Amino acid sequence: MADKKKVIVIGGGFGGVFAAKSLEKLGRGLVDVELINNNNYFVFQPLLPEVASSNLNSSDAVVPLRQLLTRVQVRQARVMGIDFERKIVIVMQGARMTPVELPYDELVIALGTGVDLARIPGMADHALTMKDLTDAHMLRTHVIGCLETADVTTDTLVKDQLLTFIVVGAGFSGVETAAETNELISRALRYYHNIKPEEIRMYLVEFAPRILPTFPADLAEYATKNLRANGVDVLTGVGTKSATSTGVELTNGRVINASTVVATIGNGPHPLVQSLGLDMHWGRIKTNRFMQVPGHDDVWALGDAALIPLNDDPKEDPADYATQTAQFAVREGYQLAVNIVAKLKGEPLKPFAYTSKGSLASLGMSKAVADVYGVKMHGIFAWLLWRGFYLSFLPGLVAKVRVGLNWMINAVMPPNIVQLRMPAPATRYIHFWKGDKVFEPGMLIDGFYTVVKGRFRLTIDNPDTGEHFEKEFGPGEHFGERVLLKSHLRTGLVVALEDGLLLFTAQKDFRRFARAFPPLEKYFRSYIDETFGGPDKTFAPGNVGDEKEDEHEPQA
Amino acid sequence: MADKKKVIVIGGGFGGVFAAKSLEKLGRGLVDVELINNNNYFVFQPLLPEVASSNLNSSDAVVPLRQLLTRVQVRQARVMGIDFERKIVIVMQGARMTPVELPYDELVIALGTGVDLARIPGMADHALTMKDLTDAHMLRTHVIGCLETADVTTDTLVKDQLLTFIVVGAGFSGVETAAETNELISRALRYYHNIKPEEIRMYLVEFAPRILPTFPADLAEYATKNLRANGVDVLTGVGTKSATSTGVELTNGRVINASTVVATIGNGPHPLVQSLGLDMHWGRIKTNRFMQVPGHDDVWALGDAALIPLNDDPKEDPADYATQTAQFAVREGYQLAVNIVAKLKGEPLKPFAYTSKGSLASLGMSKAVADVYGVKMHGIFAWLLWRGFYLSFLPGLVAKVRVGLNWMINAVMPPNIVQLRMPAPATRYIHFWKGDKVFEPGMLIDGFYTVVKGRFRLTIDNPDTGEHFEKEFGPGEHFGERVLLKSHLRTGLVVALEDGLLLFTAQKDFRRFARAFPPLEKYFRSYIDETFGGPDKTFAPGNVGDEKEDEHEPQA
Repeated sequence: MADKKKVIVIGGGFGGVFAAKSLEKLGRGLVDVELINNNNYFVFQPLLPEVASSNLNSSDAVVPLRQLLTRVQVRQARVMGIDFERKIVIVMQGARMTPVELPYDELVIALGTGVDLARIPGMADHALTMKDLTDAHMLRTHVIGCLETADVTTDTLVKDQLLTFIVVGAGFSGVETAAETNELISRALRYYHNIKPEEIRMYLVEFAPRILPTFPADLAEYATKNLRANGVDVLTGVGTKSATSTGVELTNGRVINASTVVATIGNGPHPLVQSLGLDMHWGRIKTNRFMQVPGHDDVWALGDAALIPLNDDPKEDPADYATQTAQFAVREGYQLAVNIVAKLKGEPLKPFAYTSKGSLASLGMSKAVADVYGVKMHGIFAWLLWRGFYLSFLPGLVAKVRVGLNWMINAVMPPNIVQLRMPAPATRYIHFWKGDKVFEPGMLIDGFYTVVKGRFRLTIDNPDTGEHFEKEFGPGEHFGERVLLKSHLRTGLVVALEDGLLLFTAQKDFRRFARAFPPLEKYFRSYIDETFGGPDKTFAPGNVGDEKEDEHEPQA
Repeated sequence: MADKKKVIVIGGGFGGVFAAKSLEKLGRGLVDVELINNNNYFVFQPLLPEVASSNLNSSDAVVPLRQLLTRVQVRQARVMGIDFERKIVIVMQGARMTPVELPYDELVIALGTGVDLARIPGMADHALTMKDLTDAHMLRTHVIGCLETADVTTDTLVKDQLLTFIVVGAGFSGVETAAETNELISRALRYYHNIKPEEIRMYLVEFAPRILPTFPADLAEYATKNLRANGVDVLTGVGTKSATSTGVELTNGRVINASTVVATIGNGPHPLVQSLGLDMHWGRIKTNRFMQVPGHDDVWALGDAALIPLNDDPKEDPADYATQTAQFAVREGYQLAVNIVAKLKGEPLKPFAYTSKGSLASLGMSKAVADVYGVKMHGIFAWLLWRGFYLSFLPGLVAKVRVGLNWMINAVMPPNIVQLRMPAPATRYIHFWKGDKVFEPGMLIDGFYTVVKGRFRLTIDNPDTGEHFEKEFGPGEHFGERVLLKSHLRTGLVVALEDGLLLFTAQKDFRRFARAFPPLEKYFRSYIDETFGGPDKTFAPGNVGDEKEDEHEPQA
């Protein structure tokens, strides 16, 4: 027992979980397995679009790691670094983020990929993504929020924008996200009496000449027709050039105004993977055919984070490497466990080899496309196959039962349009195109703006006195500091004079900080006195709606 | 049709929903009904403890208002004020918070109550509450997070604190919250191999001499015994004096260290209700026996927000007024609809009258206490009655089916320990008792601290050089600005020299703001140069863990 080796698996996706699961079985008595993940659950990514469409509850598309891996030590922690020399993983854990050093004998890196949208200006700040459970939940919340506001607004431009939805990228994830979101909206509309179905616009934007590039062309064509029949406007051969809070500019110059942009593009290396100093190619960790990292016999990599050759002389061709799919990751996990056990027993390792069994993609509305063992299918049978396949693939009996039952319940129930909102972030970057309005008179004062890039013009017109005030702001300058005053509504109009970027800081956080921190308090006291003056514009806590005054704010 | 009167109902709790529902039925052809609520769902508060215990999904304890009120215009908006003269409700709606004025003929105020914990220092900043769906979700997330960390920590003091849970207030909500949370933990423990059941401490603290004051004494006694048998430490006749992030101080001087404090006390008037300038008593809007607000024939109030007399000569005695329970609110809603319709038809109004049918409280573990029509019950039959009663009481068939099925599913399934985390707030106040540590060497640098009250001492000891550095901070002073530097871990220890209060600002938001806003950037540049100096301590973006560098931060 004292001779047991410690295997640490970093990452709780398909690769990590199936490696750990096989290790706890095959390595019994030989290894102690620990799996480190930032969340305490495994995300079954293929079902995320169904969470976004509220066909499933948020917790149905995930499985608690501890229920999946009953003989593995699960550690919810953030990995800060790996010391390959000392064979130690450094993690931060707990609410107070305390550092812990974890020694290993064998290390498995299964961190998957990250999202990198930096190439498209504004996309990272304005697009929703579909990598994680939170993403799916946010998309659903956001879509329902758009319907809620569209139902009661009287501004037709705002309504148009609220009812336009853009999904960027038409691989599996993009197609399923567009299809499922479209289905949610169609089903929900009967509760929104002031929205007509023809007012909804859903775009699926793909840079490649066709959607679903990994599928046979005829299935992709079927999918395109099917999506179009359901009202999804499929745009192929066009990319996105920039994004703001009001929409997307395409590479062909077309601007689509939309409150909702979902980016399913931009897979990039996981930041931690990138920082490890390992030999990388195409953003993935190079391994040998046994999934060992060159130069480190005790370090293994698999899943989307790894570049695993499928033959002994791989060319500069993706077909010579394991593809980044769940199917491959599961198989890699098993093979990797076999190899670690073999290594510890002094037996020979086996190279990884696998051929894809096919692909499936749901098109919503009980339709799907399938290409399984070379057999092509579409329509409701493909959709039933899709559901059956994922149900069988979903790890853990409990999860299967939950998902199966909820599918049945939701088939006969109206869509769940409950909007469980998350708190908005305190700071966010907002991109503007030339001519865009930042705010206008009458809007609620909700925060403070600092110019990062571009120029903005503020104009205040007093209808009673006829007074007109104008001021321009450039990088480093700021506006909206009336958030610190006892006043509710904007009196000015701010417009972007060129494409620009603002840092927005939410009222509550800005005020707490500006009042508790004397250098800032002093700065704003004199700035506001100079700019606004007058006895009625005292530098005092506001009284906005039902928001409680901050009891700890020093009273001026 | 042109003669239809507009009735606006503010608030989507029991009172508001049942008033709107009765109005859409009784007032057909006579009134147009609009209901305004901040969320697009009705919260079935009695089931919130079951959400906290993950017996139900978050969306099961709520019902979309639009599904409940199919002929009512539902508006998700924040009410900013009411102009009783002009008969207008002013709301802010949409993501951009645009103001809208809504004229009414008859107005129904059904805003419920707010939470006011200001009397107990630190409680508002550190205790979780149980008013809303978000509260229940946060409690569950928090409890599971405590188990996750306790399972992997090696610090026994930290572990003790993580495994201690305090519920303050032992009315319905407190008793059910303590019982359900206790059940969740008991059921979850089998997945946390490093936590022993005897390490869990659950306290229920009540200022009154006994728990469940509205129940007969013998049922309260049964409940107390039952809770104690399940490991809940019931403390009666004792209040809470103060709270910090590390625990609670009781009025008898005892300090209980705990990471989790839930406050079910401190009902206060809703801030909007308080701002309306209406005649109030006990924090509630006075009405006549018909639920009209004196001086405003077209303004009505009901539910927890209203003080409705039950006879023509009410004394200074709560028994002379409608009690603040769902049972009463539902009945009030019906009666109010009858009265509005009667008023519009010129018929006489009827005074509100109702007698409580009894009370039910779940004790978890398939036990409850019930006092219905004077019949007292406890144990599993009371629990079945409790479930049956709430199922029948839950509005909407869809909601009933969902809850019923999920109860069945979860009865045979292991507890759902998925931790769906919410983003942490960017700024928060943290209270400290004298001697408490704020942070210590080796912890991750996660934010910036400004002193609001009290004195704090920083000490840095360099083990290599033997150097010792000490500095004290008072109100308006700050520490932790190394969050702006390229460095990961705290090197100093900060301790509270007296009871104090800090404003914490999270790293990401603080850095974005400090870098985009020149006055702050300038201040810190010189402050850091003076304080830390040296070429390796450049004022540059950090590189913490997997957190991506902020692409918009100006590089120094």
